[in-house]
Amino acid sequence: MIKTVILGNGNVGTHLCQAFEKNDQIALLQNYNRKNEAIANCQVPVTSDTNSIVNAEVYILAFNDAALENLTPFHHLNGLVVHTSGGTDMKVLKNFTNHGVFYPAQSFTKSIPVDFKNVPFAVEANSVLSEKILLHLAGALSKQVYAVNSQQRLALHTAAVFANNFTNFLFTKAQEICQQHQLDFKLLLPLINNSVNKLKHQTPDKLQTGPAIRKDQNTIENHLQLLETDSQKNIYQLLTNEIQNYYGKKL
Amino acid sequence: MIKTVILGNGNVGTHLCQAFEKNDQIALLQNYNRKNEAIANCQVPVTSDTNSIVNAEVYILAFNDAALENLTPFHHLNGLVVHTSGGTDMKVLKNFTNHGVFYPAQSFTKSIPVDFKNVPFAVEANSVLSEKILLHLAGALSKQVYAVNSQQRLALHTAAVFANNFTNFLFTKAQEICQQHQLDFKLLLPLINNSVNKLKHQTPDKLQTGPAIRKDQNTIENHLQLLETDSQKNIYQLLTNEIQNYYGKKL
Repeated sequence: MIKTVILGNGNVGTHLCQAFEKNDQIALLQNYNRKNEAIANCQVPVTSDTNSIVNAEVYILAFNDAALENLTPFHHLNGLVVHTSGGTDMKVLKNFTNHGVFYPAQSFTKSIPVDFKNVPFAVEANSVLSEKILLHLAGALSKQVYAVNSQQRLALHTAAVFANNFTNFLFTKAQEICQQHQLDFKLLLPLINNSVNKLKHQTPDKLQTGPAIRKDQNTIENHLQLLETDSQKNIYQLLTNEIQNYYGKKL
Repeated sequence: MIKTVILGNGNVGTHLCQAFEKNDQIALLQNYNRKNEAIANCQVPVTSDTNSIVNAEVYILAFNDAALENLTPFHHLNGLVVHTSGGTDMKVLKNFTNHGVFYPAQSFTKSIPVDFKNVPFAVEANSVLSEKILLHLAGALSKQVYAVNSQQRLALHTAAVFANNFTNFLFTKAQEICQQHQLDFKLLLPLINNSVNKLKHQTPDKLQTGPAIRKDQNTIENHLQLLETDSQKNIYQLLTNEIQNYYGKKL
């Protein structure tokens, strides 16, 4: 059993506490959080006193990016100290002899249960031994565990912005267009689900459809005329051009 | 039973033939296609001779947009003549006394079965009676049937480009970033599925996350530095700006 302490009780901290407590390869000794709040659906002892944090092999700082900028109150911790942030350099932990990153590539919502078996983990450490410990810890939770370097983790985090944050904003734009024409956005959900389901069988570059790749200029102009805001038009024009450049080069 | 003939044997034509044949409210009398090809998993009689097309109440032209531009060979058809294209004006059928549109808001792949119960249909016609017939026909297949006008159908088609075609291209960009850093794109699938599942419970404008909405300029700069092509940078910069404008105004 790997002895662990989880610091932080946000979305990531809470879900990790719940999963660690149930896992028979992991001993979760304690949670630290500033307000001394109990963790939902979890019996782990809690402290808000940095000097009362117990000894462990791995300390997981499930803090937001801003909180990772001032870690002085934790500098006395002895053991492997890791953060869970996809976008934060491992170097923020350089004052800890053994340090690393334990990044679950998933977005969490406190109230929605997480099936960690299907959450990919990207781990990184400043020594081979620490990397092994993190691979073991992540492997106890998930089927998908990857050792990555800093650049790869940043790439993964950047790719996730395209695949998750930006696509969600395009859904918002689609919703806006529906609203402007008294249409229910739910009309588009079967189409969205369908196109995401296809990613199980085929990579997205092979799945592109629509007027841009068909070079259907007539439809493109009809769409641009229908759009009511500069924001909608700018996004439509840029992505149409980018699709045509991408597939133009490939042909 | 509504007597129907389906013209065309592409993705939409094939799936509609299969669904119509099984449906006890619809009589599928014939399929017309230029090569006189049998329809997979469907016993419907086939013809390639426009003069042999049998009498029916509804003729469904499941043609691609280009083929809808020359319909002279079909001008002798008597009955309600409709096309299935989301992006084509109903007016292309103006030479037929009774005409309309029968648009399934879904993207089809020939080899993947379609559950029409969950495919939204947007119908439009040049008379109230014809609209009723189309609502009835669509209602025999699907739980989600909407009467729309031309402008609404074009809006739905445009919104679908954002929600489907453009998001797929962002997945392609994410895949490209992964490849450039020796990462498996499959790492992102749980994240993608998770964010799409949330749309069942919440509209996308309430689900936005990421560095843009957080105004996390440090992370944004790290991401822009990591990106290797102008295409990636242009998309990142535009969508980041648009997200900040959208949520900036709302605050």
